[in-house]
Amino acid sequence: MSGFLRNLGVRLPLIQAPMAGGPDSPALAAAVSEAGGLGSLGCAYLTPEQLEQAIAATRALTPAPFAINLFVRSDPPDDAGAMARVAAALEPLRRELKLTEQPAPAKPLPGFDAQLEVVLRLKPRVLSFTFGLLAPHQLAALRAAGIATVGTATTLEEGEALQRLGVDAICAQGSEAGGHRGTFLGDPYDALTGTLTLTRQLVTRLRVPIIAAGGIMDTAGIRAVLHLGAFAAQLGTAFMLCPEAGTHPAHRAALKSAAARTTVVTRAFSGRAARGIKNRFSELFGDRAQQIAPATFPQHQALTAELRSAAAAQNRPDLMQLWCGQNAVMLRELPARELVGALIDGLVSI
Amino acid sequence: MSGFLRNLGVRLPLIQAPMAGGPDSPALAAAVSEAGGLGSLGCAYLTPEQLEQAIAATRALTPAPFAINLFVRSDPPDDAGAMARVAAALEPLRRELKLTEQPAPAKPLPGFDAQLEVVLRLKPRVLSFTFGLLAPHQLAALRAAGIATVGTATTLEEGEALQRLGVDAICAQGSEAGGHRGTFLGDPYDALTGTLTLTRQLVTRLRVPIIAAGGIMDTAGIRAVLHLGAFAAQLGTAFMLCPEAGTHPAHRAALKSAAARTTVVTRAFSGRAARGIKNRFSELFGDRAQQIAPATFPQHQALTAELRSAAAAQNRPDLMQLWCGQNAVMLRELPARELVGALIDGLVSI
Repeated sequence: MSGFLRNLGVRLPLIQAPMAGGPDSPALAAAVSEAGGLGSLGCAYLTPEQLEQAIAATRALTPAPFAINLFVRSDPPDDAGAMARVAAALEPLRRELKLTEQPAPAKPLPGFDAQLEVVLRLKPRVLSFTFGLLAPHQLAALRAAGIATVGTATTLEEGEALQRLGVDAICAQGSEAGGHRGTFLGDPYDALTGTLTLTRQLVTRLRVPIIAAGGIMDTAGIRAVLHLGAFAAQLGTAFMLCPEAGTHPAHRAALKSAAARTTVVTRAFSGRAARGIKNRFSELFGDRAQQIAPATFPQHQALTAELRSAAAAQNRPDLMQLWCGQNAVMLRELPARELVGALIDGLVSI
Repeated sequence: MSGFLRNLGVRLPLIQAPMAGGPDSPALAAAVSEAGGLGSLGCAYLTPEQLEQAIAATRALTPAPFAINLFVRSDPPDDAGAMARVAAALEPLRRELKLTEQPAPAKPLPGFDAQLEVVLRLKPRVLSFTFGLLAPHQLAALRAAGIATVGTATTLEEGEALQRLGVDAICAQGSEAGGHRGTFLGDPYDALTGTLTLTRQLVTRLRVPIIAAGGIMDTAGIRAVLHLGAFAAQLGTAFMLCPEAGTHPAHRAALKSAAARTTVVTRAFSGRAARGIKNRFSELFGDRAQQIAPATFPQHQALTAELRSAAAAQNRPDLMQLWCGQNAVMLRELPARELVGALIDGLVSI
């Protein structure tokens, strides 16, 4: 048992990964935390008010600790040319989905500073973050508030930067992981390091305790990463079929289908590299089979938002954002408490 | 201990990966086998006579079993247009290396059938193969000769195909692995599944015993894949700095440098996807930053052969083929016997 989890009073070396934008939920995070793991809420897209509500909703369900996850963003300025190009490329798909010719004005993402203010005020036990580094004064404020910090690394360089910053733990996001890549130094396509490799590199080269993420779906996977020296395994895709998860029905169906055997890392949906089930939309702005260069995050995401919502509403998995790790073939459909029980079955023997 | 290794009389769950074209050698394979693991010789580029010599040279060094590895190829017909395009792209680099304007005529790769004939006659204990499936009559002939067979899978679909064929074991080639990708069904860039994930998928979905490969560099890595259910770990990059290896001095220097932290899967060198250290040449025909589409294997490889040789002779790592897995940062420089000892240190405790 690591000091990190012991300090939190978390019994199991198991973290439910944050999955912003739908799949995670207060019900899921609370159920995992109640079962002895550490639940997470991906709050990157929430306004300060929504973030406050999400924390309150989770606290209403459990007194156990859980983690809030935010994106540390430094948004580039709008590139009108790129945005016009993407908008034009989306136009035929918008027509296909019977959307009006004029896209609804995109909502800007909530500002990180305002989100952090809520976290500092409401003091969830853990803040995990991705896409970058907190400023030293932000880390100091979190520490002073008694909030443990977890940074996300996709390379050894990023792990080294997080260690210099002084986080309490680092999540090694292996290439198998679904959803957005956390890469913040260099090209994310050069930072697709397998979970086994990245975990072992960070464990042997850093002093900060390491969480392993990517492709872990069962007890053997958890045991393997503990043997690599991680103190906990973080699982996202594994929880996506739980009834407590907010996963869209068409997304659930895709996860259970043979389509989920083929995932790609693509910038098509948000402008940032993310792993999901390969589909028609992922290939439109694909990085290899690329027809049209995407705009940057979050402008690109804003441009695709209305289309993605319409695709979900119309059950069109070919145009939906179907985040998924590489190991959906091992998915089980169980309530979160039972899944946690199955995941740690026999783990005591390590 | 698995039946596969027990039948061979191999004591340790450790296989030295075949590394055709230089890094492996009879001295390396023999040293690993003598130390209790299973050495391998990558013989894909050897003529029948050279293959016979390599087997004899290894047998002169050890009575222990070792594996021969071959590429199961189905070469596409020459595409004159693609070859002319590649030749033109290589021209400035040829000038830079002071090669004559007219490339030397490319040597065709030895035929697989002739190679297999040598294997059936000389009966090494194991034939591992990659890039495809043996024909059923070839597998039957190997079995009749008492030669164990190991196929290479990069996806669950390929594992299923190898199981149907009836191989004795399957090597799960995780995305971390260096050198050529074995992918033979579908796009190799859709088949970059992490070692942890692929190993666990094949172990849980197939009945054939599984070997795990990709990013494994130490005892903890071996222990992790054994806990995933693999019966052995296969390590390539880990052996590349052994004095017994044939690794080129400039390649050794690159493996020890910070450059080895960034590897890419590229078709630039051979026309087939392979993982190596990112350099100027890998980016020339890169699949993402692609300037020029490569020709297919082995035509593309033949076109680049003289240039690659000249680059090696002139110590020009920017133009050399620097195969490397994702975990070179953990490389140790030890004689093979000592390295095997270090790799299995404490492994008895599993």
